Amino acid sequence: MISVEEAQQRIASAFSPIDTETIDLAHMAGRVLAEDLTAHTDQPPFPISAMDGYAVRAYDGGEPRRVIGTAPAGHPFKGKLGSGEAVRIFTGGVIPQGADAIVIQEEVDGEGDMIHFNAGACTSDYIRAAGLDFKAGDVLAANGKRVTARDLALLAAGDITYAKVRRRPRVAIASIGDELSRPGEPRQPGGIAASSGYGLSAMIQAWGGAPCDFGILPDTAQEIATVADADAELVVTLGGVSVGDHDLVQKSLGTRDFTLDFWKVAMRPGKPLIFGRLGTTPLLGMPGNPVSTLICAILFLRPAIDAMLGTDKQTCSLPQRFKCGCRTLTARLKRELPANDSRQSYLRARLIQEGGEVWVEPFEVQDSSMLSILAQSDALVVRAPGAPAAKPGDPTEIIPLDGY
Amino acid sequence: MISVEEAQQRIASAFSPIDTETIDLAHMAGRVLAEDLTAHTDQPPFPISAMDGYAVRAYDGGEPRRVIGTAPAGHPFKGKLGSGEAVRIFTGGVIPQGADAIVIQEEVDGEGDMIHFNAGACTSDYIRAAGLDFKAGDVLAANGKRVTARDLALLAAGDITYAKVRRRPRVAIASIGDELSRPGEPRQPGGIAASSGYGLSAMIQAWGGAPCDFGILPDTAQEIATVADADAELVVTLGGVSVGDHDLVQKSLGTRDFTLDFWKVAMRPGKPLIFGRLGTTPLLGMPGNPVSTLICAILFLRPAIDAMLGTDKQTCSLPQRFKCGCRTLTARLKRELPANDSRQSYLRARLIQEGGEVWVEPFEVQDSSMLSILAQSDALVVRAPGAPAAKPGDPTEIIPLDGY
Repeated sequence: MISVEEAQQRIASAFSPIDTETIDLAHMAGRVLAEDLTAHTDQPPFPISAMDGYAVRAYDGGEPRRVIGTAPAGHPFKGKLGSGEAVRIFTGGVIPQGADAIVIQEEVDGEGDMIHFNAGACTSDYIRAAGLDFKAGDVLAANGKRVTARDLALLAAGDITYAKVRRRPRVAIASIGDELSRPGEPRQPGGIAASSGYGLSAMIQAWGGAPCDFGILPDTAQEIATVADADAELVVTLGGVSVGDHDLVQKSLGTRDFTLDFWKVAMRPGKPLIFGRLGTTPLLGMPGNPVSTLICAILFLRPAIDAMLGTDKQTCSLPQRFKCGCRTLTARLKRELPANDSRQSYLRARLIQEGGEVWVEPFEVQDSSMLSILAQSDALVVRAPGAPAAKPGDPTEIIPLDGY
Repeated sequence: MISVEEAQQRIASAFSPIDTETIDLAHMAGRVLAEDLTAHTDQPPFPISAMDGYAVRAYDGGEPRRVIGTAPAGHPFKGKLGSGEAVRIFTGGVIPQGADAIVIQEEVDGEGDMIHFNAGACTSDYIRAAGLDFKAGDVLAANGKRVTARDLALLAAGDITYAKVRRRPRVAIASIGDELSRPGEPRQPGGIAASSGYGLSAMIQAWGGAPCDFGILPDTAQEIATVADADAELVVTLGGVSVGDHDLVQKSLGTRDFTLDFWKVAMRPGKPLIFGRLGTTPLLGMPGNPVSTLICAILFLRPAIDAMLGTDKQTCSLPQRFKCGCRTLTARLKRELPANDSRQSYLRARLIQEGGEVWVEPFEVQDSSMLSILAQSDALVVRAPGAPAAKPGDPTEIIPLDGY
């Protein structure tokens, strides 16, 4: 048995960024960039007014000004502003040639085409310089970044219309077990509905992968061996990793050029995890128990997808940590916990915000077969091997289950 | 001018849950349920073994047992187990009739079909009772819940194959401004690329709505009035709300049965927000400045979508708070802030995790035209009207910008 950390390292080191595709700006949300995107233009492209008012020369002080034209957004004043002159300007309007200050409209008295204001009302503060937000050639979003909605607006402002992104890695999912049939299908005696695959597909999609369902395979070596034919960057098997005295997945795949990297991780739930290669394709064999499957996915599958997308090298800011799931946060424990044994434990728990702090309350019942408890959970409490007993108020490591 | 809170209340009260559609389990991730989903089966449907070992009668104590059959998952033992008998059982196997205890395989010595173990090894702890996870008729996911990946696995286990969900509300987006053209298109003098709509569409999609792009409209009343023809549950205009002395959107829509609810909110950025109705369709007129647009979307558009999806009545657990954006968390301030004026402010900021606590550091530059700063932000710091100066370490209210 190896530690969770070693298993994560071995898995992550088995993947590298996959090939790329070029896509349109409109489809870029959530995709991972495979190149630095640099602005094609200054933003703003020219100095503009931040307010509605009048563009003037500051040097003229409080002298009255003659209004010689207008400059609304999109309609620059074509002439040049001279001494004693003003141009009516609106938010986003281009600062006319010759002007170096704005007087906001609230400060102005006017009659006909003459305006009056105090010298002190005249300020360059409301002029946004060309390139204030960014300059042509600035990197607006770096290689390896997952594009957010805010990035999209920024890229559009930089006149970027397409980008090279990582292809979504294909992850084949095969559910193994004679007892399984699809939800709603007739059930044999002793049969249950296959459930993990549905949750896993949604997680893979949320993390940027493309799940492909390989279906349900019975517990025979011949059937299980067919997963070697999946056209995918990663094959995930669910179940068949801890059947009786032997491991069915390993045994079945022996005929298909399977090389084991490791089997069994010192964790709870999820111990009988397999990792290896089917020819050149990595294979992650997860326990069939749905709670174990989904927790193993958060711990081991997500980092694999991150590595294929090239996001794993990025410095993680806090919100990304919330999202990436494999990273942890600290919360205060709401109730006492006994000392842990030698396996790293992931307790299903609720989060509570109280007095400006985040508290975490593990469920009393931690049976690893209870999907209902996992579905109600807000976070997993991480208990290290050999962790001593903990009391209410102790800071404790959690993995928030946000968004999946 | 009204307060942010009043604006949010007036907007939320203008929407109610929209109509529903019935969709397959495989497409349910992220959708909002319009009915309680109840389990069609007990889970497990029958008592099963949690371990590999032997099913026995506890009453027989440490007596040797004769192995009379096997019960792997999906293949129940068909007979009845009697005194002095055992059935070889595997994880997920149905507990045979007559058995009431499991001896795990590690505790057993065997020879031929006879097995030996200590009486103390015999336990009912490894029997998972029928319905341990849930019982037929239990509500697995409630009306108004946004379905997570974990919910999907739970619903599948409960044999649920389809559900009634809220239709994605259509949100029409019209960008207004003579200065705008699409990214990559030729630019007029004084022209810039329309950018807010791209970010807004991605946000609407992330929040469960269906964005429909109404395109770019010039600053003329006739053109702007065409938004009244949009086939949508909500019309959003970007720009045209603060042009010169008048409000162009209101003026243009007067001919199209527009009723104003409010105009202008005491906030920064984002003051000139409009809310009203075009006939019966709500209209949200947002400032054209992309930073204002996206912050107003988080504060006002997301709650509108939530109300249409029927999620707003749900008690928000912490991870949902992270997601919903309109809810806030507490973090410690990394640097001092001056006293605030009478407008509620939303400062762009970075989050840092340090010593088990979350710290927030507002950017020095808060110019509302700087999309590059918003894109780098992890959170918004909320500064209430009249908030006194704050010093490093002070707990402060933040809106995390997670996932968008």
